[in-house]
Amino acid sequence: MMMDETLTRLFATVDARRGADPSSSYTAKLFSRGRGKIAQKVGEEAVETVIAALSEGQDKVVSESADLLYHLMVLWADCGVTPDQVAAELARREGVSGIAEKAARPA
Amino acid sequence: MMMDETLTRLFATVDARRGADPSSSYTAKLFSRGRGKIAQKVGEEAVETVIAALSEGQDKVVSESADLLYHLMVLWADCGVTPDQVAAELARREGVSGIAEKAARPA
Amino acid sequence: MMMDETLTRLFATVDARRGADPSSSYTAKLFSRGRGKIAQKVGEEAVETVIAALSEGQDKVVSESADLLYHLMVLWADCGVTPDQVAAELARREGVSGIAEKAARPA
Amino acid sequence: MMMDETLTRLFATVDARRGADPSSSYTAKLFSRGRGKIAQKVGEEAVETVIAALSEGQDKVVSESADLLYHLMVLWADCGVTPDQVAAELARREGVSGIAEKAARPA
Repeated sequence: MMMDETLTRLFATVDARRGADPSSSYTAKLFSRGRGKIAQKVGEEAVETVIAALSEGQDKVVSESADLLYHLMVLWADCGVTPDQVAAELARREGVSGIAEKAARPA
Repeated sequence: MMMDETLTRLFATVDARRGADPSSSYTAKLFSRGRGKIAQKVGEEAVETVIAALSEGQDKVVSESADLLYHLMVLWADCGVTPDQVAAELARREGVSGIAEKAARPA
Repeated sequence: MMMDETLTRLFATVDARRGADPSSSYTAKLFSRGRGKIAQKVGEEAVETVIAALSEGQDKVVSESADLLYHLMVLWADCGVTPDQVAAELARREGVSGIAEKAARPA
Repeated sequence: MMMDETLTRLFATVDARRGADPSSSYTAKLFSRGRGKIAQKVGEEAVETVIAALSEGQDKVVSESADLLYHLMVLWADCGVTPDQVAAELARREGVSGIAEKAARPA
């Protein structure tokens, strides 16, 4: 199971539920409650991921991270942000940071 | 630019810096400061993503989300968690939720 | 109603429930679930306070702040920290900052 | 040093700096950066308090809690919320909860 297709597919699934009948799925219900509620869930799942990393086991880090990524996808969809935009930003930084680290190496 | 390869490659890059000389990169420095500091950055970037979504523009959501994902990769590497484990958990839920949503549909 | 006596009394009430039968009160139950759970609630209520301030009304800021302070008292009690220690730290900084601000004033 | 007078006095000091020249104090600068920035600091300090409680000592819990309360006072002032409103809400709940706990006691 690769992270690769997973996030792209998850985002597509989530995004398809925008505007759906709130009773049809948890995701549709979350969209219907509005951005404040969605953002709150992102914050809460991040806190749970932090706590899992500091005082619980690897399994809990995996499961809280999955919760965090899922809610982050919902927030992106609600804001009209796509995974490709975030991927492009990450790639851009990687380029910049690759150059910076090369420059920092002793000759 | 696809999110797919990006996260996998980002994780590999981050993970390769575990144990490296802290002065060689920001990532190596972060590992050297320990899990508490890494977890703190995850929490802070989540808060900034929340605030961007509620009171700033799309560009800020993209850039704060990139920060969040990068620090989450560092936390996973520090905990010995891999993207594939989280992807498997997300796929497992998608399966479960697909079944649940099918069952919830009116006949 | 003054904040003054309120926090001191709230802390005393909370602290008295440490070690009590978990079924006797929400506070006793929270202590029984351990520091990870208590810390999680502090993080979550802070996120809710942030969201109330950015996208909800004053009433919600008041009620989320009350939740935050209550759970912070439980965390202090669990860590063996007293309100007086935090008050002393705040007063110490106020002194330092008073001096710094005096020094920063134009002659 | 009592928490009591401390918070009331801290709030008054903070509130008096609303609208002051941003270069005159850290508090005045924070107000000038807007509610998003103030809320972000509240979220960040809460995360640091959580991490201190889980993986650092009592001294760090005290100092991070002081940071959290200070930034919470700035957020209240920015939202036009007073400590007395929050205290009244806490007292109201204490009343309700006292009754609830009495009712829950075995006869």
